[in-house]
Amino acid sequence: MTDQPAMLVVSAHAADFVWRASGGIASFVRQGGRAHVVCLTYGEKGESQGLWKQPGMTLETVKARRHEEASTAAAVLGAEIEFLDLGDYPIRPTDELYAALVATMRRVRPDVILTHPARDPYNLDHSLVHEVVLRSRMIAQAAGHDPDTRPIGAPQVLQFEPHQPEQCGFKPDLLLDVSDVFPLKRRAMEAMEGAQGHLVAYYDELGGRRGVQARRNGGASTITHAEAYERVFPTVAGSLR
Amino acid sequence: MTDQPAMLVVSAHAADFVWRASGGIASFVRQGGRAHVVCLTYGEKGESQGLWKQPGMTLETVKARRHEEASTAAAVLGAEIEFLDLGDYPIRPTDELYAALVATMRRVRPDVILTHPARDPYNLDHSLVHEVVLRSRMIAQAAGHDPDTRPIGAPQVLQFEPHQPEQCGFKPDLLLDVSDVFPLKRRAMEAMEGAQGHLVAYYDELGGRRGVQARRNGGASTITHAEAYERVFPTVAGSLR
Amino acid sequence: MTDQPAMLVVSAHAADFVWRASGGIASFVRQGGRAHVVCLTYGEKGESQGLWKQPGMTLETVKARRHEEASTAAAVLGAEIEFLDLGDYPIRPTDELYAALVATMRRVRPDVILTHPARDPYNLDHSLVHEVVLRSRMIAQAAGHDPDTRPIGAPQVLQFEPHQPEQCGFKPDLLLDVSDVFPLKRRAMEAMEGAQGHLVAYYDELGGRRGVQARRNGGASTITHAEAYERVFPTVAGSLR
Amino acid sequence: MTDQPAMLVVSAHAADFVWRASGGIASFVRQGGRAHVVCLTYGEKGESQGLWKQPGMTLETVKARRHEEASTAAAVLGAEIEFLDLGDYPIRPTDELYAALVATMRRVRPDVILTHPARDPYNLDHSLVHEVVLRSRMIAQAAGHDPDTRPIGAPQVLQFEPHQPEQCGFKPDLLLDVSDVFPLKRRAMEAMEGAQGHLVAYYDELGGRRGVQARRNGGASTITHAEAYERVFPTVAGSLR
Amino acid sequence: MTDQPAMLVVSAHAADFVWRASGGIASFVRQGGRAHVVCLTYGEKGESQGLWKQPGMTLETVKARRHEEASTAAAVLGAEIEFLDLGDYPIRPTDELYAALVATMRRVRPDVILTHPARDPYNLDHSLVHEVVLRSRMIAQAAGHDPDTRPIGAPQVLQFEPHQPEQCGFKPDLLLDVSDVFPLKRRAMEAMEGAQGHLVAYYDELGGRRGVQARRNGGASTITHAEAYERVFPTVAGSLR
Amino acid sequence: MTDQPAMLVVSAHAADFVWRASGGIASFVRQGGRAHVVCLTYGEKGESQGLWKQPGMTLETVKARRHEEASTAAAVLGAEIEFLDLGDYPIRPTDELYAALVATMRRVRPDVILTHPARDPYNLDHSLVHEVVLRSRMIAQAAGHDPDTRPIGAPQVLQFEPHQPEQCGFKPDLLLDVSDVFPLKRRAMEAMEGAQGHLVAYYDELGGRRGVQARRNGGASTITHAEAYERVFPTVAGSLR
Repeated sequence: MTDQPAMLVVSAHAADFVWRASGGIASFVRQGGRAHVVCLTYGEKGESQGLWKQPGMTLETVKARRHEEASTAAAVLGAEIEFLDLGDYPIRPTDELYAALVATMRRVRPDVILTHPARDPYNLDHSLVHEVVLRSRMIAQAAGHDPDTRPIGAPQVLQFEPHQPEQCGFKPDLLLDVSDVFPLKRRAMEAMEGAQGHLVAYYDELGGRRGVQARRNGGASTITHAEAYERVFPTVAGSLR
Repeated sequence: MTDQPAMLVVSAHAADFVWRASGGIASFVRQGGRAHVVCLTYGEKGESQGLWKQPGMTLETVKARRHEEASTAAAVLGAEIEFLDLGDYPIRPTDELYAALVATMRRVRPDVILTHPARDPYNLDHSLVHEVVLRSRMIAQAAGHDPDTRPIGAPQVLQFEPHQPEQCGFKPDLLLDVSDVFPLKRRAMEAMEGAQGHLVAYYDELGGRRGVQARRNGGASTITHAEAYERVFPTVAGSLR
Repeated sequence: MTDQPAMLVVSAHAADFVWRASGGIASFVRQGGRAHVVCLTYGEKGESQGLWKQPGMTLETVKARRHEEASTAAAVLGAEIEFLDLGDYPIRPTDELYAALVATMRRVRPDVILTHPARDPYNLDHSLVHEVVLRSRMIAQAAGHDPDTRPIGAPQVLQFEPHQPEQCGFKPDLLLDVSDVFPLKRRAMEAMEGAQGHLVAYYDELGGRRGVQARRNGGASTITHAEAYERVFPTVAGSLR
Repeated sequence: MTDQPAMLVVSAHAADFVWRASGGIASFVRQGGRAHVVCLTYGEKGESQGLWKQPGMTLETVKARRHEEASTAAAVLGAEIEFLDLGDYPIRPTDELYAALVATMRRVRPDVILTHPARDPYNLDHSLVHEVVLRSRMIAQAAGHDPDTRPIGAPQVLQFEPHQPEQCGFKPDLLLDVSDVFPLKRRAMEAMEGAQGHLVAYYDELGGRRGVQARRNGGASTITHAEAYERVFPTVAGSLR
Repeated sequence: MTDQPAMLVVSAHAADFVWRASGGIASFVRQGGRAHVVCLTYGEKGESQGLWKQPGMTLETVKARRHEEASTAAAVLGAEIEFLDLGDYPIRPTDELYAALVATMRRVRPDVILTHPARDPYNLDHSLVHEVVLRSRMIAQAAGHDPDTRPIGAPQVLQFEPHQPEQCGFKPDLLLDVSDVFPLKRRAMEAMEGAQGHLVAYYDELGGRRGVQARRNGGASTITHAEAYERVFPTVAGSLR
Repeated sequence: MTDQPAMLVVSAHAADFVWRASGGIASFVRQGGRAHVVCLTYGEKGESQGLWKQPGMTLETVKARRHEEASTAAAVLGAEIEFLDLGDYPIRPTDELYAALVATMRRVRPDVILTHPARDPYNLDHSLVHEVVLRSRMIAQAAGHDPDTRPIGAPQVLQFEPHQPEQCGFKPDLLLDVSDVFPLKRRAMEAMEGAQGHLVAYYDELGGRRGVQARRNGGASTITHAEAYERVFPTVAGSLR
């Protein structure tokens, strides 16, 4: 056990953490933290349309490609990555899923957890994972759960940005300056181009737009790119400065 | 102009800042900041029931007592205080009020503004002041307003806690540790006992309850007292740690 | 001063109290209470389309007709009625309006206040009156307001039903059985037919529909008609039975 | 079958009904009603941290202690108690759970049901139980369910107070005067001290705070303690007095 | 594959589509479209109280009667109908249900889907079906799901009106003129009278009330009846006229 | 009086209609409609930071430049434009403003009105104008207002997009395809570059992003640019196709 800060990222499909949170991950790592990504699925059915257009694809070959792409992206960001391969579209809230996630939480002992927002009418895998994360966090905190591992504290849960934020009721309350790590985010995104290449430009622009908003909300004029998050729990602070 | 951090507190009536934000003020001052309190009114009609029970009171004597009490409280906290004496129950959104508040904003140049929450069905002076503060902030930012003073940036606005938080839709998203300055808060509250003595014990207990919640949300186990705030704008951060 | 229960009804225009609350008024009176209706305006511009279709109408003749109609309706219900004649479309939140309403509150000393709901995108006179009532209640409670009259307590404020409830975010939380007084409501509504005759059948049916919902929510099977209200403040009760 | 009023309390874990609703239970019983508490689990994993700190504890010994504590608390309040022992953290919405709860509803035939609120990001067992109760109520009302027992009517469902009400979107709309039974609530809480002793003072203070709010909202000046509830369905009333 | 517009209606119980959406169905068919209704259950337990009052009824006879009634109603409207017979009160979100619904979506290829709203505290079968429909739509869109059938596009999902709209947070944003097909709706409703005869007059009146509202919101003065819907997704338009 | 469709755009400051609605305006005009823009102010104080950086600027020279820029932009779009020059930061809800706006509504007789959204914590001029427009619409509809002009019907009010949509609770429910007129929008935006040149690229990108979302929500694959709107009132339709 060390004092190194730890981050846990729970990604419904293999690429979600890349589009939505790789700036936050890279920044956390660069500042000395340890980031651990759990992909519940490869997004093999629902989020690999680019691959399915290629000839001869099967579930297994798609999953292999996504494994490779997401592993590359994680490496670019400096994060560990773990794949549960539980099957997507739909993800099911099984006992197996809870057991895996709770065990990971007790092992990683995150100071902060990043995951999907509470609502997404376009993608119910995403909103399900939000609920699964909160329930797993509750179990991982329980004094009477699994005496062989130690209960966790009360890490903040940050919701990263969905594809159509207003339709999901997503209201950012934290704009994270990711200017200095944005080149890493670009490289991580480019690693996913096989399956979802059309998203790279989209999320590149989004980074710039959130950067403008960060400056508008009192951030330094040097900020060029930001990522938006919404907290689940109140923050505890020692200062209003 | 110095680099000393500045806080502006806009209080509808003379005592609001004491019950709701004096921990935040004292903490800001202790950490090296400068705190400036503006009381729009003395709360002479609506929030001085203790004084009105005393014989021979008039509006003028009530206001004088409140001036004295609130000045004492501010001194305890280490804050400057200014009284606009605009008349309460109801407060009216006059041009005079906007002019005074905008001028104060440009003079104080706050890094953070504390004021009442957006909704309070029990006390429409409070919700009006919220709107007045946001509108004044907008004017104070305008490049074309008053060429003799300099536009302000984009300070965060923190809503402090109303008396019945759930009825006001108040959802704290910032629990501020005020453990070390709570003795000052107690002394500041005691300065207001003439008019509203029944509130001292109430807000003393509330500090303890918010302290419990701060610990529950990941705060240090040493926290004994906290104050609750709700942000108006997103925060801009350089780190998720 | 007696112990007779008192109700205050604040109606933006001359007929609002009839369509929306006359069951509640008649029921309150029949059960021994005293009901006082304040019409801020005659609804002469905005809610008298039936009269304006008649030849030779002027603002004065329309107001006279509305005065007569609403007075008749109040008499049918057994309520006192008072007209402020402040001018509609739009109603303005003047000092004169507050003074009149606060004085009425201190004189009537209501146990319950009925008025318009907080939001109505079709009719901003209605939503303005909601806010005016809450602000007047606050002033009427203030120990330091007008030493010649006595502060009121904390009467519940019930919002009566707007014309298009879902569009106003109106969520009824009180279904009042008005079965036995519904004939009076019909007669009161018929008194308003000159200006707004098309509404009689509409609100007759609505009474039946709300009656069905009252039975659905645990009301007696004998309920035939109900009116819907939404409370502003929590109720205080001595029993859960 | 008698005419004695009946209350059903559905408690996710063994102690929830004590902290959150024992004033309401004791008051209901004292006024002649019959109260039946169903504990879905013992809270053995998630809400027994005090016991787990004691040496030699196992799931079975923790459950036995919680059985004893909660039984004592129910006896103090004058309520019947039933334990389903379905396992906590997480509670699962099994067919077995629905069958048990629906059967209890048809047997107890409650006039009012007390349970957890709809949302609680800290404790998804609580929010799950809310949904389970509403679904069970729907089944228990169905004409075609289990011909051997009789469908129930439409009892109100009251949500009792969560630990951090604002974070759960809990807005009390019923403040119940429990002043005269508060000594019983204290004794019931003290029965739970083995597992969660730190909560006794917290909920004692909360009772006083809700009492202040009851007085502020028009309750009698003699009220010293209250409990807060939020209704799920509209109330049906015969009077506005 | 033709260019005929297609509508899919997902009805939790056999009669829901009749009360809530038969105007929309009949209108769509009359304008040249093809409407396909899927009834997940017969509503045999929960929504057949009229039948259960008749002697000698069993689940099987109730289901047979509901099959006959709903088939007649669909024929009146000109719609195809399909019964999954999955069991009601409660409906369970099984893999079998998802498989059936996704297959129907890929076969029918709807331009618009009609189903229950997101929230209904009285009827959790309804809110569950809402979520099931959104999840099924997501699966049916997935490139990697079932290579033997073709992914669907992004059909709008329209929520039809629940029985107590305000209690469900239902806010209509589409008032559909069904004046010319209302005689068909009446005949379809009359086909359901065995089980739920009391609802015919209720929904007849509701059609008139929604018609009034359609005229109030700018609809033609010839509109006599309307149905209310709430969209899940934004509309895409080529014109603001 | 002709049958040409009419649009009224109410813009708080001189440039708002350009950034937020010029696609909708140009499209309406190209399809044969008549568009009339009312600028309540020149945005001379609050939204002309580019001009104030130029030497020798006064309120009058800034207003003249904004007059010229906005007139050019309107001409590019094919719209009429009118300036009320009422003074910005803050805009005041005077009788003069209502009189002017109501008169314009009765003269233009719009089928649709475009204006600012209901909430904007950054810019209270914008949210005020929203309320002013709804109140003016109500007055313009009143049978008894100004017998010399004719009451209007019930035009839809569309809220155009604020600068930080999520912070304003803006949820687009109408994505308008403006692909074919986007070159006009670009030219109109370029006309405003003197005062707010930094916004041109921002809104150019936003058009593309909203275009992606339009395609995602079922729009034609040929859509390249869109604008987002949120309706105030329900739409009335004759078809679900």
